[in-house]
Amino acid sequence: MKILLIGANGTIGSAVATELEQRHEVLRIGRSSGDYQVDISDSTSIRRLFEQTGRFDALVCAAGNVTFAPLEEMNAEHFALGLNDKLMGQVNLLLIGREFINDGGSFTFTSGILNRDPIRSGASAALVNGALDAFVKAAAIELPRGLRVNAISPTVLVEAMSAYAPYFRGFKPVPAVDVALAYAKSVEGLQSGQTYQVG
Amino acid sequence: MKILLIGANGTIGSAVATELEQRHEVLRIGRSSGDYQVDISDSTSIRRLFEQTGRFDALVCAAGNVTFAPLEEMNAEHFALGLNDKLMGQVNLLLIGREFINDGGSFTFTSGILNRDPIRSGASAALVNGALDAFVKAAAIELPRGLRVNAISPTVLVEAMSAYAPYFRGFKPVPAVDVALAYAKSVEGLQSGQTYQVG
Ligand SMILES: NC(=O)c1ccc[n+]([C@@H]2O[C@H](COP(=O)([O-])OP(=O)(O)OC[C@H]3O[C@@H](n4cnc5c(N)ncnc54)[C@H](OP(=O)(O)O)[C@@H]3O)[C@@H](O)[C@H]2O)c1
Ligand SMILES: NC(=O)c1ccc[n+]([C@@H]2O[C@H](COP(=O)([O-])OP(=O)(O)OC[C@H]3O[C@@H](n4cnc5c(N)ncnc54)[C@H](OP(=O)(O)O)[C@@H]3O)[C@@H](O)[C@H]2O)c1
Repeated sequence: MKILLIGANGTIGSAVATELEQRHEVLRIGRSSGDYQVDISDSTSIRRLFEQTGRFDALVCAAGNVTFAPLEEMNAEHFALGLNDKLMGQVNLLLIGREFINDGGSFTFTSGILNRDPIRSGASAALVNGALDAFVKAAAIELPRGLRVNAISPTVLVEAMSAYAPYFRGFKPVPAVDVALAYAKSVEGLQSGQTYQVG
Repeated sequence: MKILLIGANGTIGSAVATELEQRHEVLRIGRSSGDYQVDISDSTSIRRLFEQTGRFDALVCAAGNVTFAPLEEMNAEHFALGLNDKLMGQVNLLLIGREFINDGGSFTFTSGILNRDPIRSGASAALVNGALDAFVKAAAIELPRGLRVNAISPTVLVEAMSAYAPYFRGFKPVPAVDVALAYAKSVEGLQSGQTYQVG
């Protein structure tokens, strides 16, 4: 398969690249790193990416930004980043990418644990993750041509604990190599509309 | 209690008004109908509403617009209505309303069944409902002063079937009077961070 991997240089993405490159052609994509660049918060940038990569069999997005801040300090603008970047960025990868994906292809997006197990400062992340998990469930039943869409919802990663531990006290982190398996299940399996929880 | 009811003239809101007016002072609010007017998609309009109503004990929102359309015909602009109106409209009612709500007060928002049981043309509604259910769960744990927030997630209403039946074949509709009970449970009970499913 020809797989587009957005966020290939990240904590999750680099483990996904290692997993998928054993069996597939993986195009490594980042905001500034990688073989190709895209800003998922910008529809024009997304369309330009697909014009450069050409047709493909699977798209994996392991990228997406949200604001972490105490709810008390947040206003609507703080929620806008998550809506425009992690949420609509991934939704737009499907809305635009469906023009370029081969029959039977798949989209695999990244949400996260915070809508299931919320933490301080995580209201925007929770909102976005809940929206993504719901979107893949609903979009899946309307996709034509055997196209599929799933979300991966990991808990915090072992590799991210040096930065995130204070936010995630008491959470049992999961290694990136285990998270990467869920992406392989989504891309190489046949299910659609699923949120695969890891951890 | 002094209760602000947004969407009081609607299918759900009018049943909620009947239920809550038996025991409480209910301010009926609509976009053009009611004692007070607000457009929840506009932060300035929300702030002006609270300046007019003054402090209150509970806010119920039974309003919110999303685009229903086949996924095939949707682009990012079609999702914008749901994000700006039903989703961020209700989030902003909390972000701004918390300045005006009394200690121990509650926010009750309306999501809906479509993130749990998706239908054709419902991708934006599902996304918004999933976001709202997640937001109330996450926001609840960060609210100060004994404030609470819940969502009500009804299936399609008996009273709406004349308009919505073709979208909801096979769904068992629930009468508005039953849906209204869930709003009373949220406002008059003590739970927080819940999504009350009706139907
Ligand atoms: N890390 C965790 O513990 C964890 C747990 C659950 C969920 N998640 C979610 O998983 C996703 C990835 O997390 P991560 O920790 O692996 O991220 P990360 O290490 O910060 O890597 C992010 C990657 O995404 C790319 N990127 C960032 N913004 C982008 C944009 N707007 N457009 C295109 N590419 C962009 C970056 O490109 P450059 O390399 O060019 O900068 C980088 O490759 C996030 O949505 C996060 O919420 C993470
Ligand atoms: N009806 C159902 O079967 C059903 C099932 C599940 C969930 N829901 C959800 O419940 C909510 C209400 O549905 P409904 O069927 O009761 O609606 P409805 O009968 O169309 O009534 C909508 C009410 O909300 C007000 N409104 C509309 N847009 C507004 C805005 N931007 N700002 C402030 N007020 C606004 C209207 O004011 P005016 O009276 O002045 O026009 C009206 O009072 C929606 O979010 C819907 O998705 C409905």
